[in-house]
Amino acid sequence: MTQLEQAKKNKITAQMAKVAQEEEHTGTSIRQKIAQGKVVIPFNKKRRPKKVYGIGEGLTTKINANIGTSSDASKIKDELKKMEVSIAAGAHTIMDLSTGGDIPRIRKDILQRCPVPVGTVPIYEAAVNSVKRNGSICAMKEDDIFDTIEQHAKDGVDFFTLHCGVTIESLARLKEEKRITDIVSRGGAILADWMIKNRKENPLYEYYERILDIAKRYDVTISLGDGMRPGSIADATDRTQIQELVLLGELAKQAFDNGVQTIIEGPGHVPLNQIRSNVVLQKRLCRGAPFYVLGPLVTDVAPGYDHITSAIGGAIAAACGADFLCYVTRSEHLRLPSIEDVKEGVIAARIAAHAADIAKGISKAIDWDNKISLARKKRDWKKQMSLSIDPQRPSSMRLKSKSKTTDACTMCSQYCSLKIMDQAKERLKKQE
Amino acid sequence: MTQLEQAKKNKITAQMAKVAQEEEHTGTSIRQKIAQGKVVIPFNKKRRPKKVYGIGEGLTTKINANIGTSSDASKIKDELKKMEVSIAAGAHTIMDLSTGGDIPRIRKDILQRCPVPVGTVPIYEAAVNSVKRNGSICAMKEDDIFDTIEQHAKDGVDFFTLHCGVTIESLARLKEEKRITDIVSRGGAILADWMIKNRKENPLYEYYERILDIAKRYDVTISLGDGMRPGSIADATDRTQIQELVLLGELAKQAFDNGVQTIIEGPGHVPLNQIRSNVVLQKRLCRGAPFYVLGPLVTDVAPGYDHITSAIGGAIAAACGADFLCYVTRSEHLRLPSIEDVKEGVIAARIAAHAADIAKGISKAIDWDNKISLARKKRDWKKQMSLSIDPQRPSSMRLKSKSKTTDACTMCSQYCSLKIMDQAKERLKKQE
Repeated sequence: MTQLEQAKKNKITAQMAKVAQEEEHTGTSIRQKIAQGKVVIPFNKKRRPKKVYGIGEGLTTKINANIGTSSDASKIKDELKKMEVSIAAGAHTIMDLSTGGDIPRIRKDILQRCPVPVGTVPIYEAAVNSVKRNGSICAMKEDDIFDTIEQHAKDGVDFFTLHCGVTIESLARLKEEKRITDIVSRGGAILADWMIKNRKENPLYEYYERILDIAKRYDVTISLGDGMRPGSIADATDRTQIQELVLLGELAKQAFDNGVQTIIEGPGHVPLNQIRSNVVLQKRLCRGAPFYVLGPLVTDVAPGYDHITSAIGGAIAAACGADFLCYVTRSEHLRLPSIEDVKEGVIAARIAAHAADIAKGISKAIDWDNKISLARKKRDWKKQMSLSIDPQRPSSMRLKSKSKTTDACTMCSQYCSLKIMDQAKERLKKQE
Repeated sequence: MTQLEQAKKNKITAQMAKVAQEEEHTGTSIRQKIAQGKVVIPFNKKRRPKKVYGIGEGLTTKINANIGTSSDASKIKDELKKMEVSIAAGAHTIMDLSTGGDIPRIRKDILQRCPVPVGTVPIYEAAVNSVKRNGSICAMKEDDIFDTIEQHAKDGVDFFTLHCGVTIESLARLKEEKRITDIVSRGGAILADWMIKNRKENPLYEYYERILDIAKRYDVTISLGDGMRPGSIADATDRTQIQELVLLGELAKQAFDNGVQTIIEGPGHVPLNQIRSNVVLQKRLCRGAPFYVLGPLVTDVAPGYDHITSAIGGAIAAACGADFLCYVTRSEHLRLPSIEDVKEGVIAARIAAHAADIAKGISKAIDWDNKISLARKKRDWKKQMSLSIDPQRPSSMRLKSKSKTTDACTMCSQYCSLKIMDQAKERLKKQE
């Protein structure tokens, strides 16, 4: 039975108990949220990842790091290093998006070593195989797609993205919409090209029950991909995007009724003032299913800094109720990220998630800030560093810039406001 | 006459006309906003900076970069370089916060070379002089303070921060509040120490009319400092902070009545869910005076990444109505920023300001995004780079990672969604 099926039958699984402990909730409340489809625990029955996380309403915001090869850069070693660095920096899940080199091998290596839940996008591998065998994406057979999905489930993948909402209807709407950037989802574009060439409906939509069957057998959480997500500010929250979201809500309901755990993917490039509406809409249309957003990026003009544009959007989205943030690195729109880009991307996403957790009133999030601020007030530098979201960077920065005033820093030195106030308070005590 | 006095007399100055042109407004609307105290043009009559900016309601969000020596690092050359780098990266104003070396000389060098408005915090220099002459901040004479303020105005400073709201009443409230980080404003701490030691009211409050007299003569814009700004999430929006804001509102009114341009400074460390209330409150209590925020930083736990924590807060604040963002660099809480930190800090603040301008519906902000997205769609890399908020970083990143697919990047290479969609649309055309 899946976590969802067990929750519906009033069973608190070992995984639910672990999540409850981690989140300072009761097992009963976690079970209830899962039974309502508002929380998922990505946990493939076959692989059973070491770290178990709950994603959804009332829980701390989780973050995902994408790794994986491309046809330009396919060194397994680099991607495994990115996996390690991501987890060390605090990523809760990893997605392997490989499209280059020996894809099954890379996936197996990652699944074997990765302590946290792993996600994939099976359509990538199906498309790459089709190009290798027949020279074109469009030569994919429907069965090839479902065989790939089943293989991923068998290999132990804990969640997979499936772009079931890219349909003949969605494509007709896209044509009317005259977007600047059409489709920017790789999976969405692959399926659109296949559908146009073969004049057929999206198999992931048409034979959705085949997916549900696979997902149920292994308890793979389905992440309903947003193939129609906006790739520019101008395209955000348009009819194409929202019509797909309506479809995804229906598909989530069908999965829920079949005992399959589901999360919904969301945009993308979204102006700051439209983020709240996007979250409210997703929660309503998908009956509270967890919301997994890529960014959102609040402007298109900052290539090289998209970890920042997405941290802004992600913090706002999560504070409004998004549950799961996919990191975006500074390499977005430019290149496959470097190991350093990956680390910085994870930290930026964690900052966004944590800022939202404070806004949501999660006690342990607020306690963390209070602890570091107390250390800062006391100029207890060692403690301040160890409590930092990334202890490494501030420690090395401080080492490079030594103050003559030992307990202050080179910004203010002897004119440190905290030092002056200690002195002022001392005076006040004597006067009293 | 000051810009404000002229605006009240229905005169559209050359500076107002310039601002109107830049902002795509009419001269009349700019004049009206100035006459209402809702927009300021920092423009010292004596120095007449080359670049003129309007700050306030209905205008694009402006950003300030702090530079200046400390007693640990006092190389004029470095600070002048930071000034250049800041302006090249798009800062609208520069504040010289020097507390080390030959402070008058540094200020004069900056004022001579700086094309944009320059701000200072005169109390720093007064305090440093007092320490040099008498070994203590508390030995400052009231006249020393006002002489320093006058000297800054004479030198050509366009705006100065004065912490007039740190009063005996504020300090009593601070004592009751039991904050984690008390006072984190350097100016605020200097004044608090002086007031406690000398058992006197803050001279900047008690003799406020002396400040107004100086500011009026040179048309220096007063930036009413928030000496009581929260330095940690726990201290945000407390009675100490809000009582000071009430005072600042009264002082702004007095300045306005005397023909002196005023802006109000704001926090600081603020949880994401309290930012909107802070902006609404400032606008109401200060009758629409421009709001100048430092950050706000949405968490305390990210030293080394505070350009990101403040970009999140700054974007939200500006979208809610804050007019002027003071950048925060990754060196905040750790050291005097390096030249590279300064550049990255300016870009992060510009991203925040621009994301807010899109949210505010400013046409030229939205047009910029549309242009770069169109270049991205066409894989016109040259144009995409030249339209980037910082053309340098993405260009060098792309150069370091060459794709085999010439018009794509190493992230997706041949599986670039934009390329696949071009192909799909080509197919669709042929089918029709």
